[in-house]
Amino acid sequence: METDPGFIAALEEARKGAAEGGVPIGSALVAADGTILGRGHNMRLQKGSATLHAEISTFENAGRLPASVYRGATCYTTLSPCDMCTGSCVMYKVKRVVIGENETFVGGEEYLKQRGIEVVVLKNKECQELMKKFIAEKPEEWNEDIGEP
Amino acid sequence: METDPGFIAALEEARKGAAEGGVPIGSALVAADGTILGRGHNMRLQKGSATLHAEISTFENAGRLPASVYRGATCYTTLSPCDMCTGSCVMYKVKRVVIGENETFVGGEEYLKQRGIEVVVLKNKECQELMKKFIAEKPEEWNEDIGEP
Repeated sequence: METDPGFIAALEEARKGAAEGGVPIGSALVAADGTILGRGHNMRLQKGSATLHAEISTFENAGRLPASVYRGATCYTTLSPCDMCTGSCVMYKVKRVVIGENETFVGGEEYLKQRGIEVVVLKNKECQELMKKFIAEKPEEWNEDIGEP
Repeated sequence: METDPGFIAALEEARKGAAEGGVPIGSALVAADGTILGRGHNMRLQKGSATLHAEISTFENAGRLPASVYRGATCYTTLSPCDMCTGSCVMYKVKRVVIGENETFVGGEEYLKQRGIEVVVLKNKECQELMKKFIAEKPEEWNEDIGEP
């Protein structure tokens, strides 16, 4: 599943975020037929944004879509989704969430499952390393991003 | 509580949304000391946005804030928050969510309570009327906004 185009797009987005000095989390939304509907990365530092986490950026970049499209879709994200991004996947009722890693942060995985969404965790080393480096270099910005003091 | 400046701001935002022909839901985020940190309304139709629900617009307009500010804050919203907006309140750990009405739609109120957030429902007539009119006039846009077919 690490070779899925959706995961590769999400990882590319995380790398872009890192290159921009931002929170290195990327995401992609992929339709049932494999079409990449949208992709994006966390824009907190780049845009001074409190809501453009990777998954929210991705849903936003995918634009307005009918409910039926989301329901067959997979949301790829390089990091376990926070409660807000978990909520976005629950609200749009995506079929599956594929997570690059959950070693540096565990978000709403259990809640996704409770709400009937399939969850896959890849334990991808590059996703882990991107986050470890960012957290070591910018611990305050990371805590701010997840609403922690 | 219908006379709280935060609720009045949220209601004004909902009216603005209605005047723009958009989904008539407004919100405001108010700090522990009463300062209005941000306000906004649903921008789906105005901006072609899949994520700028009223509460997300409000968190975005409030900008980057430290975790401590959110933790004493109240999120006013004219309608029971969807799962995504519920998740934003849970992620930032606001103290309280004050809801204008939950007659036309019930979102994540129980989940907010489970996560330790105080929930107040005002049963405000104007909030109900704004939504009833919109749902009657634009049912497809309303369903799209909440991820329903």
